[in-house]
Amino acid sequence: MTDPCQKTCSDLTLSYGQQKSAIRELFEYGKMKAKEIGADKVFDFSIGNPSVPPPQEVEEAFHSLLQEKDPIALHGYTSAAGDPVVRQQIAEQLNTEYGTHYDASQLYLTCGAAAALSSTFRALSLESEDNEFIVAAPYFPEYKCFVEGHGGKLSVVPSTLPALDLPLQAIENAITTSTRAVIINSPNNPSGKLYETAELQSLAALLEKKAKDIGHPIYIVSDEPYRELVYDDQKAPFIPLIYPNTLVCYSYSKALSMPGERIGYVLVPPEADYSKDLYDAIAGAARSLGYVCAPSLIQRVVGLCAHVKPDIRAYDENRHLLYEGLTHIGYEAIYPNGAFYLFVKAPGNDAKAFSDYAKQHCNLLLVPSESFGFPGFLRISYCVSKERIESAMPLFEHCFKTYQSRT
Amino acid sequence: MTDPCQKTCSDLTLSYGQQKSAIRELFEYGKMKAKEIGADKVFDFSIGNPSVPPPQEVEEAFHSLLQEKDPIALHGYTSAAGDPVVRQQIAEQLNTEYGTHYDASQLYLTCGAAAALSSTFRALSLESEDNEFIVAAPYFPEYKCFVEGHGGKLSVVPSTLPALDLPLQAIENAITTSTRAVIINSPNNPSGKLYETAELQSLAALLEKKAKDIGHPIYIVSDEPYRELVYDDQKAPFIPLIYPNTLVCYSYSKALSMPGERIGYVLVPPEADYSKDLYDAIAGAARSLGYVCAPSLIQRVVGLCAHVKPDIRAYDENRHLLYEGLTHIGYEAIYPNGAFYLFVKAPGNDAKAFSDYAKQHCNLLLVPSESFGFPGFLRISYCVSKERIESAMPLFEHCFKTYQSRT
Repeated sequence: MTDPCQKTCSDLTLSYGQQKSAIRELFEYGKMKAKEIGADKVFDFSIGNPSVPPPQEVEEAFHSLLQEKDPIALHGYTSAAGDPVVRQQIAEQLNTEYGTHYDASQLYLTCGAAAALSSTFRALSLESEDNEFIVAAPYFPEYKCFVEGHGGKLSVVPSTLPALDLPLQAIENAITTSTRAVIINSPNNPSGKLYETAELQSLAALLEKKAKDIGHPIYIVSDEPYRELVYDDQKAPFIPLIYPNTLVCYSYSKALSMPGERIGYVLVPPEADYSKDLYDAIAGAARSLGYVCAPSLIQRVVGLCAHVKPDIRAYDENRHLLYEGLTHIGYEAIYPNGAFYLFVKAPGNDAKAFSDYAKQHCNLLLVPSESFGFPGFLRISYCVSKERIESAMPLFEHCFKTYQSRT
Repeated sequence: MTDPCQKTCSDLTLSYGQQKSAIRELFEYGKMKAKEIGADKVFDFSIGNPSVPPPQEVEEAFHSLLQEKDPIALHGYTSAAGDPVVRQQIAEQLNTEYGTHYDASQLYLTCGAAAALSSTFRALSLESEDNEFIVAAPYFPEYKCFVEGHGGKLSVVPSTLPALDLPLQAIENAITTSTRAVIINSPNNPSGKLYETAELQSLAALLEKKAKDIGHPIYIVSDEPYRELVYDDQKAPFIPLIYPNTLVCYSYSKALSMPGERIGYVLVPPEADYSKDLYDAIAGAARSLGYVCAPSLIQRVVGLCAHVKPDIRAYDENRHLLYEGLTHIGYEAIYPNGAFYLFVKAPGNDAKAFSDYAKQHCNLLLVPSESFGFPGFLRISYCVSKERIESAMPLFEHCFKTYQSRT
């Protein structure tokens, strides 16, 4: 028993359990520091927890379900894919919104987008082959651990600056016969980037062409927790309408301000190649990963609230305040069209060094972008109160000036 | 694209998605038949959904949390392992009940026992080796798909009749250098069998001896959703007190009558070998499978209700009614000490044939035991109303007599 890990547990999962994400590390530091010096003196822009309470309809749905529904049925098992009534409510919301013709049988409810993504990657991972999933950086770091946890490989290509456009040429170069899917996350975490229809059409054309070359479909796995958080009267293009081989992984975490409740879905559009098999494989993946029926009360809540839109005014106000404030100081930032993150060029280009400096000198917590696969930037979450942004602005200015003069 | 499955999705997960379990198949048949001929004419003993509503304390906890707690915090992310306050509440319940000294850091909250088991099997599965998990049949069929889904092998040994005792010799014979753990499920689904302390002590002695032989620990993974459903003033022995290398996978589904809410935990006792690494590996497995923080509202509900005991009087009454009724007719049944299942010898020994006969002639739905790895028996769930058992008794008698005379 010389090597404990080797003898007792999986190296891979041990490493996932021991490595803290850069985001979580800063967040934990912020909580500790707040206890030490007071929460008002720590400026924590690290975490993507909605700062707007759930819409009134959500609270009403909880109350009416708990008061009116038979508790045995309310808290009992639903079918593994989720209550058919709830799935139909969600299908109808999508149909109303996008002019589609979905029904309950194409939706599989999951414990949030994480479970949706993990089950989808597992279902797409063939036992006898290498499995590659392409993603454009900056990307949500958990993709790597979902894909690798099922034996696959995440193939990362950098987005195109200055606006983080889809790197079509790099994606084309990265496609091999092992390519199973391209992961799209628009609006993007960490950058707030929203892909427009024309850009997605070009990607669709590319993937159709390459799928013919390699002899099997290349799916888009569309991770859409921020789909409803889009500004300036824009709307996120619904990717299955552009590219039929799109599997949608959705979460209500951000739109309904309930990230802790873990509720989302996978949509397998009937227009996708082999859609019936894919749906069954996703159901089978969920089953073998230990997901049977998403939490039942919350299922019903999102069924009743499927049509509810988030109130994004507070985020929009923060977005302007932060973007305009920081660019006025001299920071270079990517103007975000969605989500609640601002992606800012790190002064001096070393994001970790600047993040450490801001933390030490001003208790300003900004996530360095290395773990998003795209060095040199800072992710600033603006799902905080307006007052926090206003109070932090002199600190952003102080850091900018002193760090620059120091280097 | 000649072979769609080969080209688009994992064979293994597709098979898990396409094969319906025997339990679900009967359950779905029952629902269909009820629509056709009326629910009162279908006698469905197929499913293990609690028939007793959640305790009053559960409903009160929902209401007070929704009324009193800040909704942003209530529905927001907790730490990945679960709210530390909730974990401490659970640790204290265990300490009070069993005289242990656990704390929050040894508990990892999960989406039910399924997620707990899946994460634990994944954590125990070494990348570079074969991984075997031993279970005594009859066993809960999903173990197979959790273990095999992570590349492991479920090694099944039959329990010893007439009372389904732990088959110690068979377990010893099944142990190899690839053995990672023995799965224990007491009280057992599908048989209601409860292992007593002496039996578990013998298993502990065996595993300690064999662990020395093979040079690494053999854990017990104790799947305990029925731990609180024990009759005749008995109590389920708490296995970590008998064998320190025990990882407990618990669910509140049955005790608090909320199987749909998907809330449970893994306990890694500090006395277990390499417990810190194991805990981290389980956390890492959960992360890579896509489990981050169990549903937050329900976490708080079980925290407040950790000490609440189920009211098992209705199940106990059903147990006697069914056991005595059936044995009086002439059926041979295993007297159950826990859970809410009766395991009955199939007249004629062909369980599938008898189940089909009972279904066709009497609309009596009984699960044949083949999928539990132990042929020749029927699982009868008695989490139904007393009236259903009383009404079904003449049908049980009719089937017994006509089937016997037919063969």
